[in-house]
Amino acid sequence: MTIEQFSTKGRLADVGEGITGDELQLAARNHGIPLEALRYDLTPPGLHYVLVHYDIPLTNAFDWRLTVNGCVEQPIDFGLTELRAMGRQTVRVTLECAGNGRANLHPRPISQPWLMEAVGTAEWTGVPLAALLEAAGVLPEAVDVVFTGADHGVERGIEQDYQRGLSVAEALESNALVAWEMNGLPLPPQHGYPLRLIVPGWYGMASVKWLRSIELIDKPFTGYQNAEAYRIRTEAGEPGVAVTRIEPRALLIPPGHPDFMTRHRFVPAGEVTLQGRAWSGWAPVDRVELSTNAGATWQDAELDASSNEDLAWRPFSFTWQATPGEHVLTVRAHDKSGRVQPIEAPWNRGGFANNTAQRLTVLVQ
Amino acid sequence: MTIEQFSTKGRLADVGEGITGDELQLAARNHGIPLEALRYDLTPPGLHYVLVHYDIPLTNAFDWRLTVNGCVEQPIDFGLTELRAMGRQTVRVTLECAGNGRANLHPRPISQPWLMEAVGTAEWTGVPLAALLEAAGVLPEAVDVVFTGADHGVERGIEQDYQRGLSVAEALESNALVAWEMNGLPLPPQHGYPLRLIVPGWYGMASVKWLRSIELIDKPFTGYQNAEAYRIRTEAGEPGVAVTRIEPRALLIPPGHPDFMTRHRFVPAGEVTLQGRAWSGWAPVDRVELSTNAGATWQDAELDASSNEDLAWRPFSFTWQATPGEHVLTVRAHDKSGRVQPIEAPWNRGGFANNTAQRLTVLVQ
Repeated sequence: MTIEQFSTKGRLADVGEGITGDELQLAARNHGIPLEALRYDLTPPGLHYVLVHYDIPLTNAFDWRLTVNGCVEQPIDFGLTELRAMGRQTVRVTLECAGNGRANLHPRPISQPWLMEAVGTAEWTGVPLAALLEAAGVLPEAVDVVFTGADHGVERGIEQDYQRGLSVAEALESNALVAWEMNGLPLPPQHGYPLRLIVPGWYGMASVKWLRSIELIDKPFTGYQNAEAYRIRTEAGEPGVAVTRIEPRALLIPPGHPDFMTRHRFVPAGEVTLQGRAWSGWAPVDRVELSTNAGATWQDAELDASSNEDLAWRPFSFTWQATPGEHVLTVRAHDKSGRVQPIEAPWNRGGFANNTAQRLTVLVQ
Repeated sequence: MTIEQFSTKGRLADVGEGITGDELQLAARNHGIPLEALRYDLTPPGLHYVLVHYDIPLTNAFDWRLTVNGCVEQPIDFGLTELRAMGRQTVRVTLECAGNGRANLHPRPISQPWLMEAVGTAEWTGVPLAALLEAAGVLPEAVDVVFTGADHGVERGIEQDYQRGLSVAEALESNALVAWEMNGLPLPPQHGYPLRLIVPGWYGMASVKWLRSIELIDKPFTGYQNAEAYRIRTEAGEPGVAVTRIEPRALLIPPGHPDFMTRHRFVPAGEVTLQGRAWSGWAPVDRVELSTNAGATWQDAELDASSNEDLAWRPFSFTWQATPGEHVLTVRAHDKSGRVQPIEAPWNRGGFANNTAQRLTVLVQ
């Protein structure tokens, strides 16, 4: 067996090719939110989506050090105690994986096979990233900020620590947080214990877990996760466009009760309150449309107040007079930047940012 | 669309048929333990395996009632406060899903497609089931005890609340617990909040979540989950044998670092400490064998003390002199009842209790 067999190149599924064993291994490790858990404004522990590129590293809060170095006046390193002394801020943030929706694309890019459930909302507590950068003193020649986690592995033939870069402007203006608590408790191992970055509004790949280093560099960062992996491309080899903020999406809590195997839904006839959540990383959601006839006609759902309008999902509801027979429910979000969730999102080779509208088949009895 | 399309019959995958969309939906909702999390003696929240047949129900501890009725001297119902007043016992238990290993079978039964990761160990706190049965007074004619959860759905065409039965003897002798805490906190929603049964040593299907009723009946229970679903059969339609206790299994913590997509492992040459966990629901594990040459030769691993020898997994370790090249690691558990984990477990139609030995491919560099 060769290194190429150990670490395969990216590929697209053949026509009609079922989910592969490699994809299933990832689906068995990583998990999404069961859609009925959209009922909780704050996602309970263990129901928030998780994606781990390599292994969850074995870490320890007691001797953990976070270094800030590179193009700074004064390199500093921080332990947890020092970070806690710098202040404490809690924000409620909806995070979504950039690969959410990938397994519904045709052809299907072979990678973590998310359907639509790679989302969750948590309260993260930590110190603003800007405060750490200010403490170190960012030099004028700094261009990008590189965040390095403690997880280590090989991806498409390249051995690496997980690393992502932001521009200095993005790092300062994104209200990013260096967090040590999730929902009021120390971070769980799979969410970055003891320290992670949270970049509100951005897909999850920016929120580097098990954060151990912040380096300021004087040229654009060209690491694997920025320059190779997380890019919107239609052809292999083209530079593509960086994946950044979360595209608008609405998801319904499936009504009625499910069939175990197909997850199809059975709903009693009569008045049904349909509920769900909608979010966007670009701007607050200001409209959700819902269709009970597979998109033939649409009506506005009622929007409830968000618990954190800028950063967290917004609940919506809709009263449906359900008549016997099969119905396809679908829903789409609009945000204040003018973005509208598409009925079918454009395809891309990496399977990123696929916010194609959810379709939910129900049998009304 | 008909009810048969909404709730399909059980079937086997065709030769070469990839994982189906239905299976992927289940894999995206339910999740296993990432194998590196076998390093924790007690599985942290969110890393313990979860299987939910229908939806996680919306429940409330404040007005929750558990009824004990049927063939008893005195039907009783309990709120959480009354249960807490009856005593408090904490046990460390390893739970495994009966379908663990299903997706590795040939032909593959189409259902929740576990590979080998549907396991976890937690500390459960509650009151012994025997104390509740004693309080109600089991009448001599009682044969079976039926446990009903609040989750509701359709399975293979049959609408049902999730229900499982035990014989009165099994209920009394299994040291079963009616639990309200997991690892010292109220049960998470997906693990049965506010109340669940824990039947140590049995596959997870016996540990009914969202427990609301315990009924004693004067004949054997013939409900779907006992008589139809959880049975070892080689032919459709035969009565089969009930799935009960957990068969022995050992799992290695994958050494070195992984490739993202294939999960193959890269290991530096030299001395490597291989570690893992082994368990059995029949009797304590008393031996673990390990092979670093795909089963050609075997050596005994060193067993550490279990934190709860009867009910929880037992750690093992093995020092390996890793030489460059490809190696297949495999491992198997023995227990004090004389059961030995097979290199390849016999096939069955439901895909239950497949404790075929783990095989882990590593490239030593």
